[in-house]
Amino acid sequence: MSLGSARHRKHWGWGYADEQPSAPDLSAAAGFLSGHLGFGSAEPTAPAPLPGLPAPRLRAPESVAGWCSVDPAVRARHAYGSSYRDVVRGFRGEFPCPPDVVARPGDERELEATLEWALGAGATVIAYGGGTSVAGGVEPGGAGDVVTIDTTRLDRVLEVDTESLAARIQAGASGPGLESQLGEYGLTLRHFPQSFQFQTLGGAIATRASGHFATGPTHIDEFVESVRALTPAGWWESRRLPSSGAGPSPDRLLLGSEGTLGIISEAWVRVLRRPVHRASAVVLFASFAAGAAAARALVQAGLRPANLRLLDPEEARLTLAGDGSAALLLVGFEGAGTDMGRVVESLLAAALACCRDCGGTAAAGAGGSPAASPGGTARADRDPSSAAEVWRDAFFRAPYVRDVLVAIGVLSETFESAITWNRFDSFVESVLGATRAAVLEVCGAGHVTCRVTHVYADGAAPYFTVLAPAARGGELEQWEAIKAAASEAVLAGGGTITHHHAVGRDHRPWYDRQRPDPFALALAAAKSAVDPGWQLNPGVLLADAVAGGPDGRRRGHP
Amino acid sequence: MSLGSARHRKHWGWGYADEQPSAPDLSAAAGFLSGHLGFGSAEPTAPAPLPGLPAPRLRAPESVAGWCSVDPAVRARHAYGSSYRDVVRGFRGEFPCPPDVVARPGDERELEATLEWALGAGATVIAYGGGTSVAGGVEPGGAGDVVTIDTTRLDRVLEVDTESLAARIQAGASGPGLESQLGEYGLTLRHFPQSFQFQTLGGAIATRASGHFATGPTHIDEFVESVRALTPAGWWESRRLPSSGAGPSPDRLLLGSEGTLGIISEAWVRVLRRPVHRASAVVLFASFAAGAAAARALVQAGLRPANLRLLDPEEARLTLAGDGSAALLLVGFEGAGTDMGRVVESLLAAALACCRDCGGTAAAGAGGSPAASPGGTARADRDPSSAAEVWRDAFFRAPYVRDVLVAIGVLSETFESAITWNRFDSFVESVLGATRAAVLEVCGAGHVTCRVTHVYADGAAPYFTVLAPAARGGELEQWEAIKAAASEAVLAGGGTITHHHAVGRDHRPWYDRQRPDPFALALAAAKSAVDPGWQLNPGVLLADAVAGGPDGRRRGHP
Repeated sequence: MSLGSARHRKHWGWGYADEQPSAPDLSAAAGFLSGHLGFGSAEPTAPAPLPGLPAPRLRAPESVAGWCSVDPAVRARHAYGSSYRDVVRGFRGEFPCPPDVVARPGDERELEATLEWALGAGATVIAYGGGTSVAGGVEPGGAGDVVTIDTTRLDRVLEVDTESLAARIQAGASGPGLESQLGEYGLTLRHFPQSFQFQTLGGAIATRASGHFATGPTHIDEFVESVRALTPAGWWESRRLPSSGAGPSPDRLLLGSEGTLGIISEAWVRVLRRPVHRASAVVLFASFAAGAAAARALVQAGLRPANLRLLDPEEARLTLAGDGSAALLLVGFEGAGTDMGRVVESLLAAALACCRDCGGTAAAGAGGSPAASPGGTARADRDPSSAAEVWRDAFFRAPYVRDVLVAIGVLSETFESAITWNRFDSFVESVLGATRAAVLEVCGAGHVTCRVTHVYADGAAPYFTVLAPAARGGELEQWEAIKAAASEAVLAGGGTITHHHAVGRDHRPWYDRQRPDPFALALAAAKSAVDPGWQLNPGVLLADAVAGGPDGRRRGHP
Repeated sequence: MSLGSARHRKHWGWGYADEQPSAPDLSAAAGFLSGHLGFGSAEPTAPAPLPGLPAPRLRAPESVAGWCSVDPAVRARHAYGSSYRDVVRGFRGEFPCPPDVVARPGDERELEATLEWALGAGATVIAYGGGTSVAGGVEPGGAGDVVTIDTTRLDRVLEVDTESLAARIQAGASGPGLESQLGEYGLTLRHFPQSFQFQTLGGAIATRASGHFATGPTHIDEFVESVRALTPAGWWESRRLPSSGAGPSPDRLLLGSEGTLGIISEAWVRVLRRPVHRASAVVLFASFAAGAAAARALVQAGLRPANLRLLDPEEARLTLAGDGSAALLLVGFEGAGTDMGRVVESLLAAALACCRDCGGTAAAGAGGSPAASPGGTARADRDPSSAAEVWRDAFFRAPYVRDVLVAIGVLSETFESAITWNRFDSFVESVLGATRAAVLEVCGAGHVTCRVTHVYADGAAPYFTVLAPAARGGELEQWEAIKAAASEAVLAGGGTITHHHAVGRDHRPWYDRQRPDPFALALAAAKSAVDPGWQLNPGVLLADAVAGGPDGRRRGHP
């Protein structure tokens, strides 16, 4: 029986085992990166080989064994997500708490059998999609037996409704996998997070992932028509609807539940016709704040560009999208209908006029290729300037680059938030300030940069990147100190602890303080109602302390 | 102490006591309506005077009595919402189960004191905003003491953030009240349901109301940045954010909770600059299905008109917006930014091209005033054709007209749903068919018409209107039979039992069947966690049967 794709991912970090860089390539990358950043070794260290793992404490019975694995490489691969902390531990060969069994059900019957067995055996059950969590979302806690349910064999687009532009897709379908299946119908989900290569639809729904659209529907929340999830109390399946006002939305309680309420099996999601019209430009601003003001102005005027990313000067330089002298605003519109060409152009013209009013100047083709000209005209039907292309390439390459950074001793961390406009400038300043201070104290040097990834009429999502010299062997302590300082600043500044990276285990201390107390009671009670043993991904989202509602007792889990 | 506005609403039906039509006006309206509809009496019956009410079973203590009332007119006014059933009962002077006490707290301290007293007294507590529920959302059940908390003294816009375009508004602010306060800043909420005159922000949030925007953000859900609500377990207040991915959204669990989890005190909501550019047109289609296909095509092309309503030929005729020979599509765009004039025009041009491709022809100014010309040009900066104006006037006048309909013995009911496009045509046909059959059987004659109120890329919200000759004294039985037949057809056809009218008590039997079972368990458990005595608006949303989760017992309410 095949247990999924023939291609194996390496046991640590990003990517497939068969696409790792050659030694000379790795050396060249190390040389370039250490020079470009000003720190890190030019000679990469080699990762530790896969070590021996603790013996599985659990054995799958005959009835489910056919799709279960205790293979050490498989267990190691499912021990972590994809955070810096995860990559470092994998690189070091540290796997003290892998799941005991990894199950890969191939259909809902197998999923039901797996969950029934695991619950009956008293095991903790962790749903695992692409393993792309950067917030500690899929990591076994250590105590008790653990069955990780990998959904990636549930990877098909089951049904396409070309009239409603929607598709029924299995939870384990990955970004490229579902795009290629939808492509046969001329359709696309157009949900491109940085983890696109491996992220699964179910994982996106469980974590409220957001895609590359900068405005308009971008959180996966907006794409979902209905969800089907298996809970210990049975199937939780909502009616497929374009909209409903019937009570609190059942889907919205599953969205962001991070595997604590049920295991998502499939969902109906809205899809799009592939865009045929595009118009985009790159605009330079003297400062990040000026660029943010332009982004605000154009969204508040009612413009909803598909792309609207703002890079601070240093982030533009580090990603090779700019020379560091200006903040870069990438703005792009797209449309699918035959009559939309003129609309797309008028939208870009209005956006550029808005940018000009805010002091922006259109880029003169950074990188050599021609860019959109200032204030009015635009290039349609092709991707814009090379600055945008360079940026996009860097965006999707980043997870690979991070493995190299670990190998050359560079600490890298990204975190993000969202904040209303009235507090935006001071928020970014204070978070940058607090994070830089922590980086200096902990690492002695480093870069902390900011970009805006998503723009709303009432605020925006700033995204921060930390790159600093790591102390070999002390990376995790460094990371923890920087993460804590940054998270404190985010919370103190009024932001959310996460805009689209999810809560997981890493953000829980701050999430606990952000969340309304009665909602915490309600959420814990909801979990108790469908998962009385608290066996589904405990430790994520909910602390044991709030379990069981007002009386503080766990229900059904004495 | 003032207990709210000096102006009193009449004890039954819609409107203020001081704006009731004169006898000759009423007679003229009756004559016109009965002639226009083909049934109903030309001589209106007079409503029964306010009867004696059952004595209050509860007495407010000194500490809260200052803002509490046991006045019969006040208690009668708070006995019902605004459904046909409610109007008929009020018209007849039937008030067997009014609330015992109506409290009108003027600030949060008074709200806290009221809730504390009512909970301690073992009373049922019903939150009441504008009393505009058409689903039995605010009606005391009859058993036990009832305190209704009227929020309309909490009617202020507390804070306006012009940078983020958001405002902190008290729950009891009505449509006109909050619009006039926001108007001082050049801002608007632009959330215009048919109940605009009396609806409150808190009521809209509690019931997931939707406004007049036909596409894009229209459900109040999309306007909410944060909510503050008082639960028996304390204040539930979310962080004010433009967006967040931190766990399941706390706001989305309150949205649609219909007073079962807490009493909303205030919310931060997104507001807009008043639009300065408008472009709109009316397009005629040979059939409702052809008009729906055009609406679908233009939204799927990426167009998001502020207005996009489709009336079937008979509904156009009955509302005097058309002559009954064609389906009418009203389409309009608006924009606020200085550079948006050209954008708005190009959007309408694209929409009209789309309509033309789908067989539509632009209306030649129905009603005498000039309309948008076909396929391309449009009138900007003014309201469009008179057909649209006639329609809009009728829309907001409808609640008043309904009182007259009751007085002349015409049964009227509206209900709505949402359905994906692949099932849209057959859904509308089967719901119309089932409802017409019931109307014929129950009333012997009548009109059942349909319009589309909200359009999504993946579906639409059809809205049905029933007008039929009522049997004096048997109206409620007629209504119940028709409502049941319509609701069965909605559910059987795959739709939602409500798109924006909420569940209340009237839709609960069908909501119970629509909702995923594990979600019902989760919701009941969430309620038990914050309202252990199940004292907040019981009977709405949740049946007692599901209370207390898997074991079927109520928690804290033996």
